[in-house]
Amino acid sequence: MNVFYVEPKRVAGPQFELSGQEARHAIKVLRLREGDEIFATDGQGTRYTGTVQSTGKDSVVAHITQKEEKPAPDPELVLAMGIIKKRDRLEFAVEKAVELGASKIVLFNSDHTVKTNVRMDRVENIIQSAMKQSMRYWLPEVQLLDSVDEVLDEFENYTVLMAHEKVDAEHQTFDTEQDILKGQKFLLLVGPEGGFSDREVELAENKGAELVSLGEYRLRAETAAVAFLARF
Amino acid sequence: MNVFYVEPKRVAGPQFELSGQEARHAIKVLRLREGDEIFATDGQGTRYTGTVQSTGKDSVVAHITQKEEKPAPDPELVLAMGIIKKRDRLEFAVEKAVELGASKIVLFNSDHTVKTNVRMDRVENIIQSAMKQSMRYWLPEVQLLDSVDEVLDEFENYTVLMAHEKVDAEHQTFDTEQDILKGQKFLLLVGPEGGFSDREVELAENKGAELVSLGEYRLRAETAAVAFLARF
Repeated sequence: MNVFYVEPKRVAGPQFELSGQEARHAIKVLRLREGDEIFATDGQGTRYTGTVQSTGKDSVVAHITQKEEKPAPDPELVLAMGIIKKRDRLEFAVEKAVELGASKIVLFNSDHTVKTNVRMDRVENIIQSAMKQSMRYWLPEVQLLDSVDEVLDEFENYTVLMAHEKVDAEHQTFDTEQDILKGQKFLLLVGPEGGFSDREVELAENKGAELVSLGEYRLRAETAAVAFLARF
Repeated sequence: MNVFYVEPKRVAGPQFELSGQEARHAIKVLRLREGDEIFATDGQGTRYTGTVQSTGKDSVVAHITQKEEKPAPDPELVLAMGIIKKRDRLEFAVEKAVELGASKIVLFNSDHTVKTNVRMDRVENIIQSAMKQSMRYWLPEVQLLDSVDEVLDEFENYTVLMAHEKVDAEHQTFDTEQDILKGQKFLLLVGPEGGFSDREVELAENKGAELVSLGEYRLRAETAAVAFLARF
Protein backbone atom coordinates (compact mmCIF):
# COMPACT_ATOMS: atom_id res chain seq x y z
CA MET A 1 0.00 0.00 0.00
CA ASN A 2 1.38 3.37 -1.01
CA VAL A 3 1.09 6.20 1.45
CA PHE A 4 2.02 9.58 0.06
CA TYR A 5 3.30 12.55 1.96
CA VAL A 6 1.08 15.63 1.84
CA GLU A 7 2.25 18.91 3.33
CA PRO A 8 -0.03 19.97 6.19
CA LYS A 9 -0.80 23.28 4.48
CA ARG A 10 -2.19 21.34 1.51
CA VAL A 11 -4.85 19.71 3.64
CA ALA A 12 -7.88 21.97 3.80
CA GLY A 13 -11.47 21.15 4.59
CA PRO A 14 -12.65 18.10 2.72
CA GLN A 15 -9.59 17.64 0.51
CA PHE A 16 -5.86 17.27 0.30
CA GLU A 17 -3.49 17.99 -2.56
CA LEU A 18 -0.26 16.28 -3.50
CA SER A 19 2.33 18.35 -5.32
CA GLY A 20 5.83 18.03 -6.74
CA GLN A 21 7.55 14.67 -6.67
CA GLU A 22 4.73 12.96 -4.81
CA ALA A 23 2.18 14.06 -7.37
CA ARG A 24 4.38 13.01 -10.28
CA HIS A 25 4.96 9.59 -8.73
CA ALA A 26 1.24 9.12 -8.20
CA ILE A 27 0.40 10.07 -11.77
CA LYS A 28 3.25 8.66 -13.83
CA VAL A 29 4.33 5.58 -11.90
CA LEU A 30 1.19 4.45 -10.11
CA ARG A 31 -1.13 5.87 -12.78
CA LEU A 32 -3.68 7.09 -10.29
CA ARG A 33 -6.76 8.56 -11.94
CA GLU A 34 -10.03 10.19 -10.99
CA GLY A 35 -12.03 7.86 -8.78
CA ASP A 36 -9.01 5.88 -7.50
CA GLU A 37 -8.40 5.43 -3.79
CA ILE A 38 -5.34 7.17 -2.39
CA PHE A 39 -3.64 7.36 1.03
CA ALA A 40 -1.56 10.21 2.35
CA THR A 41 -0.03 11.27 5.64
CA ASP A 42 0.64 14.83 6.76
CA GLY A 43 3.57 13.77 8.90
CA GLN A 44 1.78 15.18 11.92
CA GLY A 45 -0.04 12.11 13.09
CA THR A 46 -2.79 11.77 10.54
CA ARG A 47 -3.27 9.42 7.62
CA TYR A 48 -5.98 10.34 5.15
CA THR A 49 -7.88 8.04 2.86
CA GLY A 50 -9.16 9.86 -0.17
CA THR A 51 -10.68 9.53 -3.61
CA VAL A 52 -8.82 11.20 -6.46
CA GLN A 53 -10.87 14.09 -7.81
CA SER A 54 -8.49 15.56 -10.35
CA THR A 55 -4.92 15.32 -11.57
CA GLY A 56 -2.80 18.06 -13.11
CA LYS A 57 0.83 18.26 -14.22
CA ASP A 58 2.26 18.37 -10.70
CA SER A 59 -0.88 17.97 -8.70
CA VAL A 60 -3.33 15.41 -7.42
CA VAL A 61 -6.40 16.59 -5.58
CA ALA A 62 -8.28 14.05 -3.49
CA HIS A 63 -11.49 14.17 -1.52
CA ILE A 64 -11.00 12.91 2.05
CA THR A 65 -13.19 9.94 2.97
CA GLN A 66 -11.47 8.79 6.13
CA LYS A 67 -8.93 9.93 8.71
CA GLU A 68 -6.79 7.82 11.00
CA GLU A 69 -4.73 9.36 13.76
CA LYS A 70 -1.77 8.04 15.69
CA PRO A 71 -0.39 9.75 18.77
CA ALA A 72 3.13 11.18 18.69
CA PRO A 73 5.85 8.68 19.55
CA ASP A 74 6.13 8.18 23.30
CA PRO A 75 8.70 8.40 24.78
CA GLU A 76 10.10 11.15 22.59
CA LEU A 77 13.50 10.09 21.25
CA VAL A 78 15.85 12.60 19.70
CA LEU A 79 18.87 11.08 18.01
CA ALA A 80 21.83 13.45 17.77
CA MET A 81 24.72 12.13 15.69
CA GLY A 82 28.15 13.64 15.32
CA ILE A 83 28.51 14.05 11.54
CA ILE A 84 30.50 11.23 9.95
CA LYS A 85 32.42 11.51 6.72
CA LYS A 86 30.92 8.64 4.72
CA ARG A 87 27.67 9.89 3.28
CA ASP A 88 26.08 6.50 2.70
CA ARG A 89 26.67 5.48 6.29
CA LEU A 90 25.27 8.76 7.59
CA GLU A 91 22.20 8.42 5.40
CA PHE A 92 21.80 4.84 6.44
CA ALA A 93 21.79 5.85 10.09
CA VAL A 94 19.17 8.52 9.39
CA GLU A 95 16.95 6.03 7.59
CA LYS A 96 17.22 3.49 10.38
CA ALA A 97 16.58 6.19 12.97
CA VAL A 98 13.24 6.97 11.36
CA GLU A 99 12.34 3.29 11.15
CA LEU A 100 13.17 2.80 14.80
CA GLY A 101 10.98 5.66 15.99
CA ALA A 102 13.17 8.74 16.38
CA SER A 103 11.03 11.87 16.83
CA LYS A 104 13.78 14.24 15.73
CA ILE A 105 17.17 13.83 14.17
CA VAL A 106 20.04 16.20 14.84
CA LEU A 107 23.29 16.15 12.91
CA PHE A 108 26.04 18.15 14.52
CA ASN A 109 29.68 19.04 14.03
CA SER A 110 31.34 17.25 16.90
CA ASP A 111 34.94 17.92 17.94
CA HIS A 112 36.20 14.89 16.02
CA THR A 113 34.04 15.39 12.96
CA VAL A 114 36.10 15.68 9.79
CA LYS A 115 34.79 18.72 7.90
CA THR A 116 32.01 17.45 5.66
CA ASN A 117 29.18 18.99 3.68
CA VAL A 118 25.92 17.36 4.55
CA ARG A 119 23.40 17.24 1.72
CA MET A 120 20.35 18.18 3.75
CA ASP A 121 18.03 17.83 0.77
CA ARG A 122 19.01 14.18 0.44
CA VAL A 123 18.63 13.68 4.19
CA GLU A 124 15.13 15.17 4.13
CA ASN A 125 14.13 12.90 1.25
CA ILE A 126 15.46 9.89 3.09
CA ILE A 127 13.48 10.80 6.19
CA GLN A 128 10.32 11.22 4.18
CA SER A 129 10.75 7.91 2.38
CA ALA A 130 11.57 6.06 5.57
CA MET A 131 8.48 7.49 7.25
CA LYS A 132 6.28 6.24 4.45
CA GLN A 133 8.03 2.85 4.26
CA SER A 134 7.55 2.36 8.02
CA MET A 135 3.91 3.36 7.89
CA ARG A 136 4.61 6.10 10.37
CA TYR A 137 2.42 9.19 10.42
CA TRP A 138 4.94 11.45 12.12
CA LEU A 139 7.66 13.09 10.05
CA PRO A 140 10.82 13.55 12.13
CA GLU A 141 12.39 16.99 11.87
CA VAL A 142 16.05 17.16 11.06
CA GLN A 143 18.38 19.87 12.35
CA LEU A 144 21.99 20.73 11.65
CA LEU A 145 23.86 22.16 14.64
CA ASP A 146 27.39 23.36 15.12
CA SER A 147 28.58 21.63 18.29
CA VAL A 148 27.46 19.31 21.03
CA ASP A 149 27.20 22.47 23.17
CA GLU A 150 24.39 23.72 20.92
CA VAL A 151 22.69 20.34 20.98
CA LEU A 152 22.72 20.23 24.77
CA ASP A 153 21.29 23.75 24.93
CA GLU A 154 18.60 23.05 22.36
CA PHE A 155 17.38 19.99 24.27
CA GLU A 156 17.90 21.34 27.73
CA ASN A 157 15.01 19.58 29.43
CA TYR A 158 15.68 16.16 27.98
CA THR A 159 17.14 13.14 29.71
CA VAL A 160 20.51 12.95 28.01
CA LEU A 161 22.18 9.63 27.25
CA MET A 162 25.61 9.67 25.63
CA ALA A 163 26.99 6.55 23.95
CA HIS A 164 30.49 5.99 25.24
CA GLU A 165 32.84 3.06 24.79
CA LYS A 166 34.40 2.73 28.17
CA VAL A 167 31.70 2.81 30.78
CA ASP A 168 32.20 1.21 34.15
CA ALA A 169 29.50 -0.54 36.16
CA GLU A 170 28.54 2.45 38.25
CA HIS A 171 27.64 4.48 35.20
CA GLN A 172 25.50 1.82 33.62
CA THR A 173 22.21 2.52 35.39
CA PHE A 174 20.03 3.07 32.36
CA ASP A 175 16.77 1.17 32.58
CA THR A 176 14.67 0.49 29.50
CA GLU A 177 11.70 -0.92 31.42
CA GLN A 178 8.68 0.14 29.38
CA ASP A 179 6.50 1.71 32.03
CA ILE A 180 9.20 4.01 33.25
CA LEU A 181 9.69 5.50 29.82
CA LYS A 182 6.25 6.84 28.96
CA GLY A 183 5.95 10.59 28.95
CA GLN A 184 9.70 11.12 28.93
CA LYS A 185 11.94 12.89 26.47
CA PHE A 186 15.34 11.49 25.63
CA LEU A 187 18.29 12.91 23.79
CA LEU A 188 20.58 10.14 22.52
CA LEU A 189 24.07 11.38 21.69
CA VAL A 190 26.27 9.34 19.35
CA GLY A 191 29.77 10.43 18.38
CA PRO A 192 31.46 10.39 14.97
CA GLU A 193 34.22 8.01 13.83
CA GLY A 194 36.65 9.30 16.40
CA GLY A 195 34.15 9.18 19.24
CA PHE A 196 33.51 12.11 21.56
CA SER A 197 36.34 14.28 22.81
CA ASP A 198 37.10 14.47 26.53
CA ARG A 199 35.79 18.01 26.45
CA GLU A 200 32.46 16.87 25.04
CA VAL A 201 32.09 14.04 27.53
CA GLU A 202 32.86 16.36 30.43
CA LEU A 203 30.46 19.02 29.19
CA ALA A 204 27.66 16.50 28.75
CA GLU A 205 28.23 14.96 32.16
CA ASN A 206 28.22 18.40 33.78
CA LYS A 207 24.85 18.96 32.19
CA GLY A 208 23.54 15.75 33.69
CA ALA A 209 24.11 13.32 30.84
CA GLU A 210 24.43 9.65 31.58
CA LEU A 211 27.11 7.68 29.78
CA VAL A 212 25.81 4.48 28.25
CA SER A 213 27.82 1.61 26.90
CA LEU A 214 26.38 -0.11 23.85
CA GLY A 215 28.01 -3.46 24.44
CA GLU A 216 31.47 -4.91 24.57
CA TYR A 217 32.46 -4.40 20.96
CA ARG A 218 33.62 -1.27 19.25
CA LEU A 219 30.79 -0.07 17.01
CA ARG A 220 30.86 2.12 13.94
CA ALA A 221 29.03 5.41 14.44
CA GLU A 222 26.02 4.41 12.37
CA THR A 223 25.76 1.07 14.15
CA ALA A 224 25.89 2.79 17.52
CA ALA A 225 23.04 5.07 16.47
CA VAL A 226 20.88 2.14 15.44
CA ALA A 227 21.79 -0.01 18.44
CA PHE A 228 20.96 2.86 20.79
CA LEU A 229 17.49 3.40 19.35
CA ALA A 230 16.79 -0.32 19.10
CA ARG A 231 17.01 -0.55 22.87
CA PHE A 232 13.85 1.43 23.46
CA MET B 1 45.76 0.40 14.85
CA ASN B 2 45.65 -2.08 12.01
CA VAL B 3 44.92 -5.69 12.82
CA PHE B 4 45.38 -8.08 9.93
CA TYR B 5 43.68 -11.38 9.39
CA VAL B 6 45.94 -14.40 9.30
CA GLU B 7 44.60 -17.82 8.42
CA PRO B 8 45.02 -20.23 11.34
CA LYS B 9 47.02 -22.65 9.18
CA ARG B 10 49.56 -19.86 8.57
CA VAL B 11 50.37 -19.59 12.26
CA ALA B 12 53.05 -22.09 13.15
CA GLY B 13 55.45 -22.11 16.05
CA PRO B 14 57.06 -18.74 16.58
CA GLN B 15 55.72 -17.05 13.46
CA PHE B 16 52.73 -16.13 11.37
CA GLU B 17 52.47 -15.35 7.69
CA LEU B 18 50.11 -13.01 5.90
CA SER B 19 49.27 -13.80 2.31
CA GLY B 20 47.11 -12.51 -0.55
CA GLN B 21 45.24 -9.27 -0.09
CA GLU B 22 46.29 -8.83 3.52
CA ALA B 23 49.96 -9.11 2.65
CA ARG B 24 49.62 -6.71 -0.28
CA HIS B 25 47.84 -4.16 1.90
CA ALA B 26 50.53 -4.42 4.55
CA ILE B 27 53.33 -3.94 2.05
CA LYS B 28 51.94 -1.47 -0.47
CA VAL B 29 49.56 0.66 1.58
CA LEU B 30 51.00 0.56 5.06
CA ARG B 31 54.56 0.07 3.86
CA LEU B 32 55.46 -2.37 6.60
CA ARG B 33 59.10 -3.41 6.50
CA GLU B 34 61.47 -5.69 8.35
CA GLY B 35 61.55 -4.74 12.01
CA ASP B 36 58.12 -3.07 12.06
CA GLU B 37 55.51 -4.10 14.60
CA ILE B 38 52.44 -5.85 13.22
CA PHE B 39 49.19 -7.18 14.69
CA ALA B 40 47.13 -10.04 13.34
CA THR B 41 44.17 -12.12 14.44
CA ASP B 42 43.48 -15.72 13.44
CA GLY B 43 39.73 -15.25 13.79
CA GLN B 44 39.73 -17.99 16.42
CA GLY B 45 40.17 -15.91 19.52
CA THR B 46 43.79 -14.90 19.34
CA ARG B 47 45.50 -11.68 18.44
CA TYR B 48 49.22 -11.86 17.78
CA THR B 49 51.74 -9.07 18.09
CA GLY B 50 54.71 -9.67 15.86
CA THR B 51 57.81 -8.17 14.35
CA VAL B 52 58.10 -8.29 10.56
CA GLN B 53 60.91 -10.64 9.56
CA SER B 54 60.58 -10.60 5.79
CA THR B 55 58.28 -9.44 3.02
CA GLY B 56 57.77 -11.02 -0.39
CA LYS B 57 55.41 -10.31 -3.29
CA ASP B 58 52.32 -11.66 -1.56
CA SER B 59 53.74 -12.51 1.79
CA VAL B 60 54.69 -11.02 5.13
CA VAL B 61 56.36 -13.24 7.68
CA ALA B 62 56.40 -12.02 11.26
CA HIS B 63 57.96 -13.33 14.42
CA ILE B 64 55.40 -13.56 17.27
CA THR B 65 56.29 -11.52 20.35
CA GLN B 66 52.97 -11.56 22.14
CA LYS B 67 49.60 -13.28 22.17
CA GLU B 68 46.28 -12.04 23.48
CA GLU B 69 43.26 -14.29 23.73
CA LYS B 70 39.59 -13.48 24.02
CA PRO B 71 36.95 -16.10 24.78
CA ALA B 72 34.31 -16.92 22.19
CA PRO B 73 31.27 -14.63 22.32
CA ASP B 74 28.86 -15.64 25.07
CA PRO B 75 25.98 -16.10 24.62
CA GLU B 76 26.40 -17.56 21.14
CA LEU B 77 24.24 -15.62 18.69
CA VAL B 78 23.51 -16.95 15.26
CA LEU B 79 21.76 -14.52 12.95
CA ALA B 80 19.80 -16.17 10.17
CA MET B 81 18.40 -13.77 7.59
CA GLY B 82 16.00 -14.55 4.80
CA ILE B 83 17.85 -13.34 1.70
CA ILE B 84 16.75 -9.89 0.58
CA LYS B 85 17.02 -8.59 -2.94
CA LYS B 86 18.96 -5.39 -2.42
CA ARG B 87 22.59 -6.34 -2.14
CA ASP B 88 23.77 -3.25 -0.31
CA ARG B 89 21.17 -3.71 2.38
CA LEU B 90 22.01 -7.38 2.78
CA GLU B 91 25.71 -6.58 3.02
CA PHE B 92 24.99 -3.82 5.47
CA ALA B 93 23.10 -6.21 7.71
CA VAL B 94 25.99 -8.68 7.56
CA GLU B 95 28.49 -5.99 8.50
CA LYS B 96 26.38 -4.78 11.40
CA ALA B 97 25.81 -8.36 12.55
CA VAL B 98 29.55 -8.84 12.92
CA GLU B 99 29.93 -5.54 14.76
CA LEU B 100 27.15 -6.46 17.14
CA GLY B 101 28.65 -9.81 18.09
CA ALA B 102 27.06 -12.47 15.90
CA SER B 103 28.95 -15.77 16.15
CA LYS B 104 27.62 -17.11 12.87
CA ILE B 105 25.66 -15.66 10.00
CA VAL B 106 23.25 -17.71 7.94
CA LEU B 107 21.65 -16.47 4.73
CA PHE B 108 18.76 -18.59 3.57
CA ASN B 109 16.16 -18.71 0.83
CA SER B 110 12.97 -18.03 2.70
CA ASP B 111 9.52 -18.61 1.19
CA HIS B 112 9.17 -14.91 0.33
CA THR B 113 12.71 -14.43 -0.90
CA VAL B 114 12.82 -13.14 -4.47
CA LYS B 115 15.36 -15.31 -6.34
CA THR B 116 18.72 -13.62 -5.90
CA ASN B 117 22.33 -14.58 -6.37
CA VAL B 118 24.31 -13.88 -3.27
CA ARG B 119 27.93 -12.93 -3.88
CA MET B 120 29.43 -14.99 -1.10
CA ASP B 121 32.94 -13.77 -1.83
CA ARG B 122 31.84 -10.24 -1.13
CA VAL B 123 30.00 -11.32 2.00
CA GLU B 124 33.10 -13.08 3.30
CA ASN B 125 35.23 -10.00 2.69
CA ILE B 126 32.73 -7.85 4.50
CA ILE B 127 32.74 -10.18 7.48
CA GLN B 128 36.51 -10.16 7.63
CA SER B 129 36.73 -6.37 7.42
CA ALA B 130 34.04 -5.88 10.02
CA MET B 131 35.81 -8.25 12.38
CA LYS B 132 39.02 -6.27 12.07
CA GLN B 133 37.25 -2.91 12.35
CA SER B 134 35.48 -4.03 15.53
CA MET B 135 38.66 -5.35 17.07
CA ARG B 136 37.07 -8.76 17.38
CA TYR B 137 39.25 -11.86 17.40
CA TRP B 138 36.53 -14.27 16.30
CA LEU B 139 35.66 -14.57 12.61
CA PRO B 140 31.97 -15.41 12.18
CA GLU B 141 31.29 -18.22 9.72
CA VAL B 142 28.76 -17.58 7.01
CA GLN B 143 26.48 -20.25 5.58
CA LEU B 144 24.02 -20.29 2.70
CA LEU B 145 21.00 -22.55 3.26
CA ASP B 146 17.99 -23.36 1.16
CA SER B 147 15.03 -22.92 3.50
CA VAL B 148 14.12 -22.07 7.04
CA ASP B 149 13.56 -25.82 7.46
CA GLU B 150 17.28 -26.41 6.88
CA VAL B 151 18.18 -23.58 9.24
CA LEU B 152 16.04 -25.02 12.02
CA ASP B 153 17.57 -28.46 11.51
CA GLU B 154 21.12 -27.14 11.44
CA PHE B 155 20.66 -25.29 14.73
CA GLU B 156 18.47 -27.84 16.42
CA ASN B 157 19.67 -27.31 19.97
CA TYR B 158 19.48 -23.55 19.92
CA THR B 159 16.92 -21.30 21.58
CA VAL B 160 15.08 -20.02 18.55
CA LEU B 161 13.70 -16.49 18.40
CA MET B 162 11.80 -15.42 15.31
CA ALA B 163 11.19 -11.75 14.57
CA HIS B 164 7.54 -11.30 13.79
CA GLU B 165 5.50 -8.17 13.34
CA LYS B 166 2.28 -9.03 15.05
CA VAL B 167 3.04 -10.50 18.42
CA ASP B 168 0.54 -10.34 21.21
CA ALA B 169 1.37 -9.95 24.87
CA GLU B 170 1.35 -13.63 25.71
CA HIS B 171 4.07 -14.38 23.17
CA GLN B 172 6.35 -11.62 24.31
CA THR B 173 8.14 -13.39 27.15
CA PHE B 174 11.71 -12.93 25.96
CA ASP B 175 14.01 -11.74 28.72
CA THR B 176 17.36 -10.16 27.92
CA GLU B 177 18.54 -10.01 31.54
CA GLN B 178 22.29 -10.51 31.30
CA ASP B 179 22.79 -13.29 33.83
CA ILE B 180 20.21 -15.51 32.25
CA LEU B 181 21.94 -15.42 28.90
CA LYS B 182 25.41 -16.69 29.66
CA GLY B 183 26.17 -20.14 28.31
CA GLN B 184 23.19 -20.13 26.00
CA LYS B 185 22.95 -20.46 22.24
CA PHE B 186 20.45 -18.40 20.29
CA LEU B 187 19.24 -18.56 16.72
CA LEU B 188 17.72 -15.26 15.65
CA LEU B 189 15.48 -15.59 12.60
CA VAL B 190 14.73 -12.52 10.51
CA GLY B 191 12.53 -12.67 7.42
CA PRO B 192 13.06 -11.04 4.00
CA GLU B 193 11.12 -8.04 2.63
CA GLY B 194 7.86 -9.94 2.59
CA GLY B 195 8.31 -11.31 6.09
CA PHE B 196 7.91 -14.97 6.97
CA SER B 197 5.17 -17.07 5.41
CA ASP B 198 2.51 -18.64 7.62
CA ARG B 199 4.09 -21.99 6.85
CA GLU B 200 7.46 -20.82 8.14
CA VAL B 201 6.00 -19.30 11.30
CA GLU B 202 4.06 -22.47 12.04
CA LEU B 203 7.07 -24.71 11.41
CA ALA B 204 9.27 -22.60 13.66
CA GLU B 205 6.69 -22.52 16.44
CA ASN B 206 6.25 -26.28 16.23
CA LYS B 207 9.98 -26.59 16.73
CA GLY B 208 9.80 -24.46 19.84
CA ALA B 209 10.60 -21.03 18.44
CA GLU B 210 9.44 -17.97 20.29
CA LEU B 211 7.98 -15.10 18.29
CA VAL B 212 9.49 -11.75 19.18
CA SER B 213 8.21 -8.34 18.24
CA LEU B 214 10.88 -5.75 17.52
CA GLY B 215 8.76 -2.73 18.39
CA GLU B 216 5.67 -1.03 17.13
CA TYR B 217 6.95 0.10 13.76
CA ARG B 218 7.36 -1.89 10.61
CA LEU B 219 11.10 -2.45 10.10
CA ARG B 220 13.02 -3.21 6.95
CA ALA B 221 14.68 -6.63 7.01
CA GLU B 222 18.18 -5.27 7.58
CA THR B 223 16.96 -2.99 10.36
CA ALA B 224 15.21 -5.89 12.05
CA ALA B 225 18.43 -7.90 11.95
CA VAL B 226 20.38 -5.10 13.59
CA ALA B 227 17.69 -4.26 16.12
CA PHE B 228 17.43 -7.91 17.13
CA LEU B 229 21.14 -8.27 17.81
CA ALA B 230 21.37 -4.88 19.51
CA ARG B 231 19.07 -6.17 22.23
CA PHE B 232 21.57 -8.62 23.60
